[in-house]
Amino acid sequence: MEYYMRYYEDIELGDSWHNGAHRVSKEEIIGFARQWDPQPFHIDEQAARDSVFGVLTASSVHTYAISSLIASRSENEIAAVAMLGMEVSFPNPVRVEDDITLETECIEKRASRSRPEVGVMKTRARMLRGDGEIVMKMDATFLVARRPEPAPATPV
Amino acid sequence: MEYYMRYYEDIELGDSWHNGAHRVSKEEIIGFARQWDPQPFHIDEQAARDSVFGVLTASSVHTYAISSLIASRSENEIAAVAMLGMEVSFPNPVRVEDDITLETECIEKRASRSRPEVGVMKTRARMLRGDGEIVMKMDATFLVARRPEPAPATPV
Repeated sequence: MEYYMRYYEDIELGDSWHNGAHRVSKEEIIGFARQWDPQPFHIDEQAARDSVFGVLTASSVHTYAISSLIASRSENEIAAVAMLGMEVSFPNPVRVEDDITLETECIEKRASRSRPEVGVMKTRARMLRGDGEIVMKMDATFLVARRPEPAPATPV
Repeated sequence: MEYYMRYYEDIELGDSWHNGAHRVSKEEIIGFARQWDPQPFHIDEQAARDSVFGVLTASSVHTYAISSLIASRSENEIAAVAMLGMEVSFPNPVRVEDDITLETECIEKRASRSRPEVGVMKTRARMLRGDGEIVMKMDATFLVARRPEPAPATPV
């Protein structure tokens, strides 16, 4: 797969961008949960009806995975090389047939003191359902590759 | 699958427990990343050698998923009914053949003001590799089911 990656130099403080959408299927919710978070209310529709949400909902891991999937499919993908940490909240659940989009803003960036080939970046993201409700807020801090130096031209 | 679930009443402030282990395979790292975070250094060993870690590493989503998997297989599983939010850091990466374990402590608990059937709980977790290095720290806040009232005995 060929795609354009944005390096540390390509993103300015305050830049923001939109990505998406990903439509979530029942099979995806159940399949993900069976493998990684097999709670009855993520894999069984009857148990989901009796749950606090009353319907089948994606697990928190799956919700975070959807944000990663959407970002990876984006033309705006950042050349992240290591995730350092994040603060995440899940104000509303992801449900079957929700169309999910992602809004991201660069809220901090600085050169790395110890690694000249990377920068440290913090982004603030909101992930939304089609009805406009927020399903995830995330501040994430990660290392981003700096643009490689062009190879020196050979003198003629 | 039948297992014992711990309700809000079953966990005291300061309680801690250990879970695990899960051995991470190369196929699991590559398979997860192909589906949810297809960065070259998560799915290609040559790209991984050229990455900041120098070896194949699990994505952050996969690392979080492993914690969820380990918790779900545990005899100590908490009857969590909704994840509200979390603060996570990834001090070291998960690598091929790492044996992952999870240590969790209850650091806050309180009744819910609006929902008598649940409590709010905060746990602090550390996930470790076999060599003792921490691969994830997580403070997670979630709703936990309260123990259901026994059905009233029928007077005879």
